[in-house]
Amino acid sequence: MVEAIACYNHQYMSENLHAMRHSLAHITASAVKRLWPEAKFGVGPVVENGFYYDIDLGQQKISEADFKRIEKEMRTIINQGQPFERFEMPIDQAISWAQENQQPYKEELLNDLKRAGTTVAKDLDSDELGLAADGESALESVSFYKNGDFVDLCRGPHVEKTSEVGAFKLLRVAGAYWRGKETNPQMQRLYGVAFENQTDLDAYLVQLEEGKARDHRKLGRELDLYTVSPLVGPGLPLFTPRGTVLRDIMSTYSNQLRQRYGFQKVWTPHITKKELYETSGHWAKFGDELFLVKSQETSDDFALKPMNCPHHTQIYASSPRSYRDMPVRFLETTTDYRDEKTGELGGLNRVRSLTQDDSHVFARPDQIEAEINNLLIAARELYERIGMSLRVRLSYRDDSEGYLGGMALWETAQAQLKVAVEGNGLDFLEETGEAAFYGPKVDFMATDAIGREHQVATIQLDFVQPQRFGLSYTDQEGNAAQPVMIHCALLGSIERFLSVFIEHTAGWFPLWAAPEQVRILTINDTVDDYVTDIRKVLDDVVLMQPVRYNELRYTVDDRHESLGKKIREAAGMKIPVQLIVGPRDREAGEVSVRTQAGEEKVALTALAEYLHNL
Amino acid sequence: MVEAIACYNHQYMSENLHAMRHSLAHITASAVKRLWPEAKFGVGPVVENGFYYDIDLGQQKISEADFKRIEKEMRTIINQGQPFERFEMPIDQAISWAQENQQPYKEELLNDLKRAGTTVAKDLDSDELGLAADGESALESVSFYKNGDFVDLCRGPHVEKTSEVGAFKLLRVAGAYWRGKETNPQMQRLYGVAFENQTDLDAYLVQLEEGKARDHRKLGRELDLYTVSPLVGPGLPLFTPRGTVLRDIMSTYSNQLRQRYGFQKVWTPHITKKELYETSGHWAKFGDELFLVKSQETSDDFALKPMNCPHHTQIYASSPRSYRDMPVRFLETTTDYRDEKTGELGGLNRVRSLTQDDSHVFARPDQIEAEINNLLIAARELYERIGMSLRVRLSYRDDSEGYLGGMALWETAQAQLKVAVEGNGLDFLEETGEAAFYGPKVDFMATDAIGREHQVATIQLDFVQPQRFGLSYTDQEGNAAQPVMIHCALLGSIERFLSVFIEHTAGWFPLWAAPEQVRILTINDTVDDYVTDIRKVLDDVVLMQPVRYNELRYTVDDRHESLGKKIREAAGMKIPVQLIVGPRDREAGEVSVRTQAGEEKVALTALAEYLHNL
Repeated sequence: MVEAIACYNHQYMSENLHAMRHSLAHITASAVKRLWPEAKFGVGPVVENGFYYDIDLGQQKISEADFKRIEKEMRTIINQGQPFERFEMPIDQAISWAQENQQPYKEELLNDLKRAGTTVAKDLDSDELGLAADGESALESVSFYKNGDFVDLCRGPHVEKTSEVGAFKLLRVAGAYWRGKETNPQMQRLYGVAFENQTDLDAYLVQLEEGKARDHRKLGRELDLYTVSPLVGPGLPLFTPRGTVLRDIMSTYSNQLRQRYGFQKVWTPHITKKELYETSGHWAKFGDELFLVKSQETSDDFALKPMNCPHHTQIYASSPRSYRDMPVRFLETTTDYRDEKTGELGGLNRVRSLTQDDSHVFARPDQIEAEINNLLIAARELYERIGMSLRVRLSYRDDSEGYLGGMALWETAQAQLKVAVEGNGLDFLEETGEAAFYGPKVDFMATDAIGREHQVATIQLDFVQPQRFGLSYTDQEGNAAQPVMIHCALLGSIERFLSVFIEHTAGWFPLWAAPEQVRILTINDTVDDYVTDIRKVLDDVVLMQPVRYNELRYTVDDRHESLGKKIREAAGMKIPVQLIVGPRDREAGEVSVRTQAGEEKVALTALAEYLHNL
Repeated sequence: MVEAIACYNHQYMSENLHAMRHSLAHITASAVKRLWPEAKFGVGPVVENGFYYDIDLGQQKISEADFKRIEKEMRTIINQGQPFERFEMPIDQAISWAQENQQPYKEELLNDLKRAGTTVAKDLDSDELGLAADGESALESVSFYKNGDFVDLCRGPHVEKTSEVGAFKLLRVAGAYWRGKETNPQMQRLYGVAFENQTDLDAYLVQLEEGKARDHRKLGRELDLYTVSPLVGPGLPLFTPRGTVLRDIMSTYSNQLRQRYGFQKVWTPHITKKELYETSGHWAKFGDELFLVKSQETSDDFALKPMNCPHHTQIYASSPRSYRDMPVRFLETTTDYRDEKTGELGGLNRVRSLTQDDSHVFARPDQIEAEINNLLIAARELYERIGMSLRVRLSYRDDSEGYLGGMALWETAQAQLKVAVEGNGLDFLEETGEAAFYGPKVDFMATDAIGREHQVATIQLDFVQPQRFGLSYTDQEGNAAQPVMIHCALLGSIERFLSVFIEHTAGWFPLWAAPEQVRILTINDTVDDYVTDIRKVLDDVVLMQPVRYNELRYTVDDRHESLGKKIREAAGMKIPVQLIVGPRDREAGEVSVRTQAGEEKVALTALAEYLHNL
């Protein structure tokens, strides 16, 4: 399912912090309006770690040099402790208000709201829209919030007074098309970060500085891992030989791990007739988020696959299955395509081509716990090896309608999920009402080397697709029974995982994963024979942990350059093991091994074992 | 390039045999017209091993039961030795002829010809169109051929008389949309096979019978290798676990082979902005054969990649290159998409999703011979292992215009190709005027176990893309120089290769490639402990030839079924090694090994070595 593989870094945010950040968006707009009274405003939602507001100042450009005076104005408003006052207006009156106040973007939003009735325009965060209430009454009136003399169309909620917003800092300003469409006017998006207190903000700003040095886009260039071509397009990175090694080693790791846990590889094409998604239900729900594919030779309508589950149901359905064959476990590491807005694309974090290490289990309902346990153990093993601690979020259904599948099935499934998570000793939190409509789920958050948390793996139950595709197995009594599907991705998407992994390691990949694991640096050409001996040793090194049959990747730098230059270049490329070889090493039958931990002499006869133990 | 990877089984056909087959198409139509005077004719081209004619008989359906009397009528025409007489008509007069003779399809073709001038409608074989001459004069008049009282719009050439057509047989009749478009009327396509003499025809018919038992579509189902879902669409096979093992083992083989010859893996996405193909020139040349991809979020126009070379140029261009870095060799085994007509899709032979083991070398002009030699050795090694003999076709340019790149470069390149082919002791033929416009090429034809020849690997030089993408390296004098590109695919497409491989082996895959290599069949459950001992031996078997790190894939059939049934099932699934285990084997510390060669006893202590030597 689309949600099964959502890869956004969406951290848990308390309701209070959410209100603070939202209120700061209003305060930012109030301050901008004091400085530039002609400002026209778009939307100003809460985002991860803070908020932004989209502003149109015509020819006037805000730069970082303006941040001080905007922040000063914001502090004045905060110090005044202005109350946030909520009031409602009939929608037509609200439209007149927007016209009178020369707020064309708000006017457009209001007109959309009026047209759509209760349906909120899908490209906007619904918090930003002044729907007076959930549901049916929304069409009649919309709500506003006022602080001081600043009035904004807004659904709320806000903090009580402007003085209750915690600690904040304006961070950057960037161009952003109105509603993300390139054909719309370009606005200025003013970003701020905000936390409940100064300590948290300071910690975040330190993390941000540390993060800059580790930025995977910067390291991606420096370590020659991938490139982006304007001819191919944004969000479609091309992986160089070094980056491809990284991709392959991670996907091999995930594949070998899952094969050890009983999964079998399958292969499906990247396109499908739309009929597959009409049957699965994705066409109705996500049809406008797909890349559509047009055949010029036939009248067939195709789409690029944004997920793999519907394809996998067709392989399951291609053979009769008995209760004895269950569970059936498929794995496929394959590239999916999602039609992201250009403005949201950057580096490997958010891409249009995302390669999932996708898995689907077709299980009997009584096998859910064992299967979830299987996957939890696999996920723990992977992230322990990567050196990231995990915690999980369990998402359950609530009593509302809209969830598919019987309540009894949900309850037993949720109980089995929790037992499996507890049995694995994982730190967890539970959220009711956060399940997907098709089943409960387990999301994994991994903490990186500088304390940032990233959503990574996910495990989701699915009661809906087996039904929609009419999947079955023959039970012990000879009757047709319906299996449960379990979706799982351990890495999530390889591209996004690599963005996290590069920053987590700052490009100093562990030996088993490094594109170039070992570089031999010669002091002069009197050691050429000895280099041949060393190569013979290295040629026989095949690492077996955590990826089996990992043949050593090494190069030789025997140029006529100074050793200092060779070492600088090897360190710049973050080669984990540098073997420095001079005449004295040859005489002693040794090599000087240089790693991040320092330098030491290792006998050539002990070199293979030394590498195996790194 | 698109042509670089053409995978059609296109055997060499002499001009005489071509004329014979083409004449037989006319004779077929003459016979049909005698039997059904109201018949309306479409086109009747020469195809591999024979010919067909598209016929519209309204409600009347031709069945195989009619073949005898059609053939009888054809033999009468043949025995009459009617001369084929050529004559010309102005195009407007030809259109009147078609109208008077109630030949609406010919009328449509003539109108298209008139409109297009010298440009032949691209969906039709130009042999079939009565262009009076090549080039500019075509618009004024068109040519016809007449035998007996049958007249057909036709470019020729034909044999002199109907008696000179060799041996033939009508083979089948199938529905075919007029000009391949589903929205057009459906016609009946009457296929015949034809050879220069009865001996060749008989040999072909025997081969055809043998081929039926080996049909990869039949074996694909029986051996559970792949499935086709109507929801996903024709030409988009989904590979089951067994089929995926086959895919993977072949792609791993090709990858390891190429890595041994100095290629580095890269990775590129399956879509690109159309700007990439505008730059490469493919958009203008092949734009209407591409799957177009529409973004709903942005105004970008994308296409699914039908080949990988333009993507790879962007990786080459992402770093500065020096003459010392050359050649740069990239490999990528990746799925390309081609918008084939539905009627042309079948099994794995012609698919919309084709996974190429694609390679690109960026070389200095002086490196061409060494690089071609490198690739020839790799191709020879692969096909020797597969057990298919190879011959090659060298395609050179002629003196005509339309070839890009300087004549000197072409001449030196063609000479280097030939030297490399001769040096490899390969049987070859040379064809002048058959090169692609961008460079000369080497195509490989492999002969399968029943004597059929299939076009498989290809190596092509390319002087054009390096220029269009402005690729360069710094030469020894410090100046920018332009590299030559070499395209190569060893397997061609994995899907098509598998269709050949399945039929070549009749599903009895060699041990290293078989999805299930070994099956243990127990005689009864008194041997369960002994099976555990056998498993321990098998768990440690990792084959190293021809694919390294090929962990043994085995299963255990310990069901309470008779041994006879277990053996029948294992043989039905063509498991290369069946280990039969009973109490006496346990006592003797042996296993009974059953292979296609027969049955023999092997000591458990010798089993691993036995498997390594199979």
